[in-house]
Amino acid sequence: MHKVALIGAGRIGRIHARNAALHPRIDLSAVVDPVDAAAQSLAGEWNSRVTTLDDVLADASISGVIVASSTDTHLEYSIRAVRAGKAVFCEKPIDQDLQRARSAAGDLAGSRLFLAFNRRFDPNFQALKARLDDGGIGVVESLQITSNDPAPPPPSYVAVSGGLFKDMAIHDFDMARWLLGEEVAEVWAAGSCLVDPEIGRLGDVDTARTVLKTASGKLCVISNTRRSGYGYDQRIEAYASGGMVRADNVLESTVQVFGEDGARADRLQNFFLDRYAEAYRREMDHFADMLDGAAPRVGYADGVAALALAEAATLSAKTGEVVRL
Amino acid sequence: MHKVALIGAGRIGRIHARNAALHPRIDLSAVVDPVDAAAQSLAGEWNSRVTTLDDVLADASISGVIVASSTDTHLEYSIRAVRAGKAVFCEKPIDQDLQRARSAAGDLAGSRLFLAFNRRFDPNFQALKARLDDGGIGVVESLQITSNDPAPPPPSYVAVSGGLFKDMAIHDFDMARWLLGEEVAEVWAAGSCLVDPEIGRLGDVDTARTVLKTASGKLCVISNTRRSGYGYDQRIEAYASGGMVRADNVLESTVQVFGEDGARADRLQNFFLDRYAEAYRREMDHFADMLDGAAPRVGYADGVAALALAEAATLSAKTGEVVRL
Amino acid sequence: MHKVALIGAGRIGRIHARNAALHPRIDLSAVVDPVDAAAQSLAGEWNSRVTTLDDVLADASISGVIVASSTDTHLEYSIRAVRAGKAVFCEKPIDQDLQRARSAAGDLAGSRLFLAFNRRFDPNFQALKARLDDGGIGVVESLQITSNDPAPPPPSYVAVSGGLFKDMAIHDFDMARWLLGEEVAEVWAAGSCLVDPEIGRLGDVDTARTVLKTASGKLCVISNTRRSGYGYDQRIEAYASGGMVRADNVLESTVQVFGEDGARADRLQNFFLDRYAEAYRREMDHFADMLDGAAPRVGYADGVAALALAEAATLSAKTGEVVRL
Amino acid sequence: MHKVALIGAGRIGRIHARNAALHPRIDLSAVVDPVDAAAQSLAGEWNSRVTTLDDVLADASISGVIVASSTDTHLEYSIRAVRAGKAVFCEKPIDQDLQRARSAAGDLAGSRLFLAFNRRFDPNFQALKARLDDGGIGVVESLQITSNDPAPPPPSYVAVSGGLFKDMAIHDFDMARWLLGEEVAEVWAAGSCLVDPEIGRLGDVDTARTVLKTASGKLCVISNTRRSGYGYDQRIEAYASGGMVRADNVLESTVQVFGEDGARADRLQNFFLDRYAEAYRREMDHFADMLDGAAPRVGYADGVAALALAEAATLSAKTGEVVRL
Repeated sequence: MHKVALIGAGRIGRIHARNAALHPRIDLSAVVDPVDAAAQSLAGEWNSRVTTLDDVLADASISGVIVASSTDTHLEYSIRAVRAGKAVFCEKPIDQDLQRARSAAGDLAGSRLFLAFNRRFDPNFQALKARLDDGGIGVVESLQITSNDPAPPPPSYVAVSGGLFKDMAIHDFDMARWLLGEEVAEVWAAGSCLVDPEIGRLGDVDTARTVLKTASGKLCVISNTRRSGYGYDQRIEAYASGGMVRADNVLESTVQVFGEDGARADRLQNFFLDRYAEAYRREMDHFADMLDGAAPRVGYADGVAALALAEAATLSAKTGEVVRL
Repeated sequence: MHKVALIGAGRIGRIHARNAALHPRIDLSAVVDPVDAAAQSLAGEWNSRVTTLDDVLADASISGVIVASSTDTHLEYSIRAVRAGKAVFCEKPIDQDLQRARSAAGDLAGSRLFLAFNRRFDPNFQALKARLDDGGIGVVESLQITSNDPAPPPPSYVAVSGGLFKDMAIHDFDMARWLLGEEVAEVWAAGSCLVDPEIGRLGDVDTARTVLKTASGKLCVISNTRRSGYGYDQRIEAYASGGMVRADNVLESTVQVFGEDGARADRLQNFFLDRYAEAYRREMDHFADMLDGAAPRVGYADGVAALALAEAATLSAKTGEVVRL
Repeated sequence: MHKVALIGAGRIGRIHARNAALHPRIDLSAVVDPVDAAAQSLAGEWNSRVTTLDDVLADASISGVIVASSTDTHLEYSIRAVRAGKAVFCEKPIDQDLQRARSAAGDLAGSRLFLAFNRRFDPNFQALKARLDDGGIGVVESLQITSNDPAPPPPSYVAVSGGLFKDMAIHDFDMARWLLGEEVAEVWAAGSCLVDPEIGRLGDVDTARTVLKTASGKLCVISNTRRSGYGYDQRIEAYASGGMVRADNVLESTVQVFGEDGARADRLQNFFLDRYAEAYRREMDHFADMLDGAAPRVGYADGVAALALAEAATLSAKTGEVVRL
Repeated sequence: MHKVALIGAGRIGRIHARNAALHPRIDLSAVVDPVDAAAQSLAGEWNSRVTTLDDVLADASISGVIVASSTDTHLEYSIRAVRAGKAVFCEKPIDQDLQRARSAAGDLAGSRLFLAFNRRFDPNFQALKARLDDGGIGVVESLQITSNDPAPPPPSYVAVSGGLFKDMAIHDFDMARWLLGEEVAEVWAAGSCLVDPEIGRLGDVDTARTVLKTASGKLCVISNTRRSGYGYDQRIEAYASGGMVRADNVLESTVQVFGEDGARADRLQNFFLDRYAEAYRREMDHFADMLDGAAPRVGYADGVAALALAEAATLSAKTGEVVRL
């Protein structure tokens, strides 16, 4: 059993706590959070103990640290944990600021840091990737990534989110890199404020289309909206030289109701905590593999690369010009 | 161009008139109907002429006769046309009375009579048959045939229809024979009156399940209701030793509307004139092939065999006992 | 936390052990199995202890017993546990012998025994039931239950299974009762041996269709085969006065691969341990509710009623005659 | 019956000839083609006569002209026919050169010219439009138009086609305008040559993504490839403030084959002559309505507007810069 500490007892921290505690190779040994009540409650739920980050880093029996604290602490805590010799499970994004993220390369490049882009661990997207990798439909040429939220966040969240491209599309930039198998050379993005004028007043957009192009000419379109009106829409289509592979949405059940006006399928599975529940479990399983010695499948460099695309898209949407990387 | 006469200018006669008139190898030369206005109207629509059955049979230039008159005349007109040397396109059923139908064997067995079971000519069911015939999923073992009408006919129609099994399920009995590739040895049927009590008062049922079994043990279930509440449901599933092949319903369009409560597909294509429009065209094309010399793909013997199953099912539903053929 | 003992450390016992151990309101306190190694291994996995049934029944701190031992012990262990004042979670079937099952009525009728028909707890079938119960599509009139195994069991299993109707279709008989909301008055079944001649030599069938009819005329068809050739096919269609509701199969992923020959969806989710994993979890959740005081949602009487239908179907398939209950 | 002349007896001319000849309100009176054999053959097929354009224009009994000749003659023949007082059915595009097309405004703006963008008449896209127009899902905000050909045309065709944007995407530009209900203000396009290097040597692209933005911020993505590897992919998704509506592909049949590796649906309906057969019929029906006095639903101005978008996209793909209209 690998002893692990969790930093951050908020919404996503609670998910990782549960998955760590129930994992057969992981012992959720400690919980750290500046809000003592949150830490106590979560630790109590899983027979863990409350402690401080300093204690965690000093405790040689703890081999892994899960960084699920606020975004602005991801870099600092990750660096400290890596320096203390821990394996790190770091929530996305690596940071909101590209320059700052890059400045950590000395510590984090090549380190045992797993940057937890959950969608790479979704069974459906993994199945899609496997179909591409088995070569049956040839070489991937272009992608269509659709990623729409059911309803917009409150303006207070938008204000500190880093904007649609860094907050929401960053997942899609990572998926694009993972599936294209090539780095992006050009970014062009168009954004509009169609959902909530308050989002526009904050300088952000709520509806966007981004086009990525690699050096060899592969193309990727990312479609985002903060409010779909029909649920959490998470789909990918990958076009290859010999066909196409698609990962469709997950529904709440397989039930269809037939009436005079047609058959109605069930709703899309609700938002990310439900939609990616299995992905979060698989992330923890990968972290257990890392604690057993495996290299991280997504690391610091991936986090920086996705952030660079998000920054480029933000710029392109503002200027209307293509950004060349 | 083969000259053809149509007997019967009713609803189904008008369909066949159109398909004959537009067929590049057929000339709709004459229309016969006891209601002169109906005959005149239809003949006028397609530049045909109104005449009598006697004239048609005596006219050596007419090589084919389409019998789309009332059911009780199918046998008599078919026999007369066959005796006159015409190729015959006869609407289903061959007759409502099994004994009478069998008594025509001397004239009709092996004759150039095409018994027009439209569903054998539906592109979807033909595609299903082709998948079975190409052997890719092995030997067929059982069938599920679903055949539900959108809404019940008026009681006046039910009263003269011959009952659900002869009027409605007769199509399904023919499909079963066609797809099983073996004759049925046992019939068991259960019928209920759940839709309209008036149908029950007329001695008929409006909801039924029929199970057919061949000598080698292949099984077929036929599901029928006079009122589905969700449109015209026409589906077949064929289970084979190496898989299953299914022909699903045809929808009015491919449009789906996504909302908070799920995605709604379009309605099922409305009733038989729409659903089987292409099947009727392909029937006429087959009749053209017959006029060119081909043998009928469905004939008198098939009409009698389907009727025998319908009569057995009617009896079984009444007695509750299995009927062995 | 409710202390619970598990009787039976075989395949299904291991599933229930895991779900009990991980349940927040249940403490898997003891494991009993005649094979000591199996008991030790399973107890070790979940920090439980190995003991005997006598000790379990004598231990007042244990409030619930899970009976997952061999079928022939279900009745005896359930009776003993009920007499000892325990709540009982009993695997299906209640017994293979209808007379013997009925003779336990004095002890078990109305008792705190939960007969664990897993499919009632499947999210998809629960969603289907909810659509029927909410009244939006009127009154249920008929059912189509499809329940096909991917591949036949070994003859040694078939020999002691009680036959297809008691072993396999018993789930479907329970579903039919649950969804029809009426008791079945007539049973007619047709069985064939098309998959494995050895099954036939053992006096059993491997392919069957059963038709159930209630007193008011509602109809249900159950389709079973021991070998589908395309996976574990578990579907239900419920036809009502105002429409139809369908629960379709669960696929391994939402991925579709498009090629020149069409789009291929992913495989059906493999066999019952995968397909009904969530159902088993929900069963344990219901058992926790019972330990909190709730009445069992499926009980002894349901087990006997399903067994009576299985026995009637077995008889009908042998004699070819309808069996009236 | 309205007498109509067809100019152009090539592939698309033959489609229109058939639909005109079979239309109950249209008489295909004359066929014109510089290749006499082609004109004779087609006229013979439909009992029409071969003549010249001059004769057609001088013949007062002819009220409509179908211009299905080579693209470079569309403008000239349309102008001559309009001047002669005829209603005009003109194949797309109006021209390959935007300046020349615009220069015809004096003759064609507001004229009785129907510019035949076939996709507006496809039943599926019409159903999608109707769902948007009925207001049930609110105001349209963005579009995803997917339009992929099964296989690339020969380089000789590409060389004179005007390029991917004018030849292929022009349909999609028209769809975007029709569905967005607003004029496009900005165009950005990315093109690659991934399919056939010869296409690149000719200065064209074979894979492209175009993003359109209206003044109010509505967004539209158009995805094109000359070779999909899986058939003729023709889909539209329209995202609105209260949901989404999608028109999916049309398949050759509803048949699905289930095997161990999943269920395979039938192929996509093959290329445009099959996929849009009904659209071509509905175009002719609209032309009959025009001959009865109706105004054209798509006219000269629409042809020019789509061409302007195609020209902008061509420029954007070359320069990498956004083009503002």
